[in-house]
Amino acid sequence: MSYFDVASAAPLHPVARQALMASLDEGWADPARLYREGRRARLLLDAAREAAAEAVGCRPDELVFTPSGTRALHDGVAGALAGRRRVGGHLVVSAVEHSAVLHAAAAHESAGGTVTEIAVDRTGAVRPEAYEAVLREDTALACLQSANHEVGTEQPVAEVAEVCRADGVPLLVDAAQSLPWGRVDGGWSLLAASAHKWGGPAGVGLLVVRKGVRFAPRGPVDERESGRAPGFENIPAVVAAAASLRAVRAEAAAEAGRLRELTERIRARVPGLVADVEVVGDPVRRLPHLVTFSCLYVDGETLLHELDRAGFSVSSGSSCTSSTLTPSHVLKAMGVVSEGNVRVSLPFGADAAEVERFLDVLPGAVAGVREKLGAPVASAATGTLDELTVDALGERCPLPVIELAKALPRVRVGGTVTVLSDDEVAAVDIPAWCWTQKQEYVGPREREHGVAYVVRRLV
Amino acid sequence: MSYFDVASAAPLHPVARQALMASLDEGWADPARLYREGRRARLLLDAAREAAAEAVGCRPDELVFTPSGTRALHDGVAGALAGRRRVGGHLVVSAVEHSAVLHAAAAHESAGGTVTEIAVDRTGAVRPEAYEAVLREDTALACLQSANHEVGTEQPVAEVAEVCRADGVPLLVDAAQSLPWGRVDGGWSLLAASAHKWGGPAGVGLLVVRKGVRFAPRGPVDERESGRAPGFENIPAVVAAAASLRAVRAEAAAEAGRLRELTERIRARVPGLVADVEVVGDPVRRLPHLVTFSCLYVDGETLLHELDRAGFSVSSGSSCTSSTLTPSHVLKAMGVVSEGNVRVSLPFGADAAEVERFLDVLPGAVAGVREKLGAPVASAATGTLDELTVDALGERCPLPVIELAKALPRVRVGGTVTVLSDDEVAAVDIPAWCWTQKQEYVGPREREHGVAYVVRRLV
Repeated sequence: MSYFDVASAAPLHPVARQALMASLDEGWADPARLYREGRRARLLLDAAREAAAEAVGCRPDELVFTPSGTRALHDGVAGALAGRRRVGGHLVVSAVEHSAVLHAAAAHESAGGTVTEIAVDRTGAVRPEAYEAVLREDTALACLQSANHEVGTEQPVAEVAEVCRADGVPLLVDAAQSLPWGRVDGGWSLLAASAHKWGGPAGVGLLVVRKGVRFAPRGPVDERESGRAPGFENIPAVVAAAASLRAVRAEAAAEAGRLRELTERIRARVPGLVADVEVVGDPVRRLPHLVTFSCLYVDGETLLHELDRAGFSVSSGSSCTSSTLTPSHVLKAMGVVSEGNVRVSLPFGADAAEVERFLDVLPGAVAGVREKLGAPVASAATGTLDELTVDALGERCPLPVIELAKALPRVRVGGTVTVLSDDEVAAVDIPAWCWTQKQEYVGPREREHGVAYVVRRLV
Repeated sequence: MSYFDVASAAPLHPVARQALMASLDEGWADPARLYREGRRARLLLDAAREAAAEAVGCRPDELVFTPSGTRALHDGVAGALAGRRRVGGHLVVSAVEHSAVLHAAAAHESAGGTVTEIAVDRTGAVRPEAYEAVLREDTALACLQSANHEVGTEQPVAEVAEVCRADGVPLLVDAAQSLPWGRVDGGWSLLAASAHKWGGPAGVGLLVVRKGVRFAPRGPVDERESGRAPGFENIPAVVAAAASLRAVRAEAAAEAGRLRELTERIRARVPGLVADVEVVGDPVRRLPHLVTFSCLYVDGETLLHELDRAGFSVSSGSSCTSSTLTPSHVLKAMGVVSEGNVRVSLPFGADAAEVERFLDVLPGAVAGVREKLGAPVASAATGTLDELTVDALGERCPLPVIELAKALPRVRVGGTVTVLSDDEVAAVDIPAWCWTQKQEYVGPREREHGVAYVVRRLV
């Protein structure tokens, strides 16, 4: 049994458990009270804040604890925008931010603000020049993750922070995925993170607002957490979060080397073990423990079930899972295949032998799903048709791509296949398939029902 | 050492600790994931929701877990107002709601809404007719606590809910103080509560929205908790909260009887043990475990320190504490003395002998503080002056009242004393003092510096 999905949530670190236990007896009272139980709680809270601030690399009075990373992002974005209301209502975010940032951006937009999304390349990275190009007189805030949660690509945060600083625009960094591995370099202005990503308990986020950054908390607040995070403090959880962050940092350098080798092995081996696979994300500038690949002609949910039966817990940005009806916005922005998507994110201490077993199990699991779906097998067919139309209306991912892959060998090189599909995912996966298969994607044509995707055979 | 402040926060219940421990291993994963760790987490979350809903008396799909009672109130008020935006922007709250409700009301007001505050009588209770009188065509929401957090007075929730229902206005009930003792009766529409008030862990609130009640969550949301409480669920804490609520309910009837006797003893004995004391709140319609009294001529913070030194942790709604600069809005709305205020809220299992010891210690503690402050001693002086002016400018609570009490015996019956004060608290405490001392409060006169409070000697 191997849990390979720490990018969603990490199991509780032993140090977190110990700290939680110890502070349940000492940290339950109201730290605003003056009696002994309150003073004890206050001491624990202050110590946790100092430890967390040291790990982040900020002053204790710049850091508040929030009920989750999501709330830190929601409240951080809203507070920073409100603090610079007079400058303007323009917000800049990358297209591959966590949905919490994109939801905050959407809320800003429906309240009358404007949002510019920065595109990414096929590895999922932004270019600092892209930020430079869109910053305006009325830009109140820019956001950029330190590393992507779905594909592990590290972002050029320090360079983007430099660009923002030159224009006097604060940069908010979502450090949820990278904070366990180290501080975020560069001159960022705000930072958010989430304890359950590093083995701290759920219910604890961090929001850091650098001194001098204008910040006006939105909605009702109270006297807690410098007026930035209302509600009674969860001190045992906060203590456990800070203690475990310090503990994982102590192990981080050694584990980073070890896990990077394991993920590198997955990156290198999977394309040889499974046909028609795209390994995505930057191969070098990436988180050490995370690797993502997409398997053509595979239904992501079924593949996850097969892997779960084999004892592996992994996640998927594929649209073919019941928890999401649309393909991952990250994979879509990168222009890579979303079907049959698998994200492996290894926990601290992950067993090398289990990674080998994963590589043993994967080809059979993928083959099983493909067989059920009637996926195409490699074919050297040299078709003679000039043109062929495939009606895939009503069919769901990955079937439209499977129909395309089966049809293309039937036309001559230079001929075209037109796929009619009303599945939203086809708009992502058909162009991505063409890229991986070195065929030409001519483009979409709107039809009365669905869309006609035209592909020209090149090889 | 006795902790008598459960109305602030209760120590962790043994059942909560046990449930928390047990679910740390089973409940850390993302319940939205389909692999085994996710499915296990989902089962725990569903079971906790069912248990909590049963305790509240609602359907499981009407109840979401929030990061705190404060957030449940903030988000509950905002969501209910937004859901009935088309009806209008009028909000009705009692004057003695928890500050979280009043902060939400203030946020609504600064966003252009209107708020009506319902006055309370000297016991802290509202009258249903007062709600009836202010409900309007454009009233979107009314709020009422089930019982007051500072003085323990129970509110006529069922009657107010009836009044609201007749006008088609939803009623939101803040049940934070009463939920451990039992369900809230009546046809309320929304309900909020907080786990750390009943011995559950911090970090868990409940928000219940009855089916059919219009509700539009404010701000960015995600797919968690029916789209009403964004952020990764804190399942171990939620499990502990639900388990401990069930556990305290099993003990509630027996403890209610026992604690009511102990608080009744405090209510009955304190006025005999300490001179110039006002026991506040309804003597009958009240929470079983909570009693509040105010000691004239006493600085609340110093008294709390003395009691803490004697081993008693209690709280104060007095303005003379460092954590608040203004007097409790509850005591102010009730028109009772705020100086030297002490709230005793007994935990489950509170020791009767310790309550006796508290009664032994209290008179000396009060006398000590009064002596330091130079408080007046009982005097049968029959003054001859017609009029006397006391300059208490620059003096802080409780000194202006002490000056008044010392001056009044120097004027004849029918004569007046004028106290000049720039302490905000005097506006509450001088009229309240007159009421307790059966003297006539003639009224305030604005002056260039501070206010002149005029008092006529009647006895």
